[in-house]
Amino acid sequence: MQIEVCYSPNSFHLFQNPNAIVVVIDVLRATSAITTAFYNGVSKMIPVATVDEALVYKEQGLMVAAERDGEIVNGFDLGNSPFGYMNTRVKGKTIAITTTNGTQAIEAAKASKQVVIGSFLNMDTLIYHLKKEKSPVIFLCAGWKNKFNLEDTIFAGAIAQALIYKHGFNTECDSAIAAMELYKLAKHDVYGFLANSSHRNRLSKLDLERDINYCLTPNQCPVLPVLEGKFLVKMELPKHDLLVNSKILNT
Amino acid sequence: MQIEVCYSPNSFHLFQNPNAIVVVIDVLRATSAITTAFYNGVSKMIPVATVDEALVYKEQGLMVAAERDGEIVNGFDLGNSPFGYMNTRVKGKTIAITTTNGTQAIEAAKASKQVVIGSFLNMDTLIYHLKKEKSPVIFLCAGWKNKFNLEDTIFAGAIAQALIYKHGFNTECDSAIAAMELYKLAKHDVYGFLANSSHRNRLSKLDLERDINYCLTPNQCPVLPVLEGKFLVKMELPKHDLLVNSKILNT
Repeated sequence: MQIEVCYSPNSFHLFQNPNAIVVVIDVLRATSAITTAFYNGVSKMIPVATVDEALVYKEQGLMVAAERDGEIVNGFDLGNSPFGYMNTRVKGKTIAITTTNGTQAIEAAKASKQVVIGSFLNMDTLIYHLKKEKSPVIFLCAGWKNKFNLEDTIFAGAIAQALIYKHGFNTECDSAIAAMELYKLAKHDVYGFLANSSHRNRLSKLDLERDINYCLTPNQCPVLPVLEGKFLVKMELPKHDLLVNSKILNT
Repeated sequence: MQIEVCYSPNSFHLFQNPNAIVVVIDVLRATSAITTAFYNGVSKMIPVATVDEALVYKEQGLMVAAERDGEIVNGFDLGNSPFGYMNTRVKGKTIAITTTNGTQAIEAAKASKQVVIGSFLNMDTLIYHLKKEKSPVIFLCAGWKNKFNLEDTIFAGAIAQALIYKHGFNTECDSAIAAMELYKLAKHDVYGFLANSSHRNRLSKLDLERDINYCLTPNQCPVLPVLEGKFLVKMELPKHDLLVNSKILNT
């Protein structure tokens, strides 16, 4: 079971593997928001690449989230702050969502065998699923406007390391090796390691420290969103009770 | 003076900066071979993207180098082994060259303000030039078939660190931060750090350990190739004698 890490949606075409599960990662904040939404009872999400597509769903009466450059787009209900999805009003709803990076990555990966959503919030649930499936895995980092970013890479490195060290996966991919090395440097203080990163600074200027802290705290939302056609839905996982306990899972 | 690191020619369009000097890096082995060629008296080189373009120069009677997947293309004089350029027969010659990755990166960067060639072999000469120019710098890693590779990234991190720590440059670029972190991990044993890297293993299978050792040994060729129109030529540097002594230069 080979692991590869793709640092940008722009490069995903280089990583085609019809047997691979693709894990889309946008830690700050799209995939953290999506994970939070499903943990809080959202029924379905429709990821779209453009604000125009989101507007069509808004006109149809759907709840719609749109974020560009860290802020809610004017006229929309929600952005990509996870705290927006911790509200009883989202329960049972279908929400269309477009974000600067995360939904572009989902769009790039949508033809893959399986597309799942990864974040620190559901990391052990993700590991549980990937080790059970025993398929090759491509981690697709959303990055920032198609450029490499640190937070998505470190998260990819964390999962890659768990799969390789504990669950029989391997890699011949330099970007996976680099991601694991960076995770090893960061793991005892991810928040501190990202202190100089470009996107953390971008969000700090928007006064989103609370979001950053939340998004970097593992295993708060033991759910796994998966793409089914145009919808993201919550994957039904066996032994669900186990997932709550990361200590059992991650051994 | 901002520093950015681009991990792949495929992503270079995201890094456009009309004021930036672009350093093309293909440590194993194109930019090491080019640096070695100029140190050994080659007059000019013509980097071309395709074997077909190289064939046209061959038909014109030029000495031509062509490498694909680590090996000399059938019917050509040279590949990208630096040892091929340590021969008196190259002295004063113009050589056209095409390689799997390096010349593709030069092609991607050719419209930039200035394009120079970087390798461990000329690293202090490169630092000397960049600190003197005081321009923004984009390090363009050739990678492997448009994917990230470790050796080019580590070299970019080495130069970025020298410019930032000692010469007043700075960065807000996550890929530059990652490159410097990886260089810090690798710097005491670059050869060992690359032991598991994809391209080192690819070359090992071709029995090219001697090439790898040579390409990772700093400051053997104190010259700086620069692109002028379609030609690479040796840059005329002031205080050239100083360049030979890396201890003086790199302080």
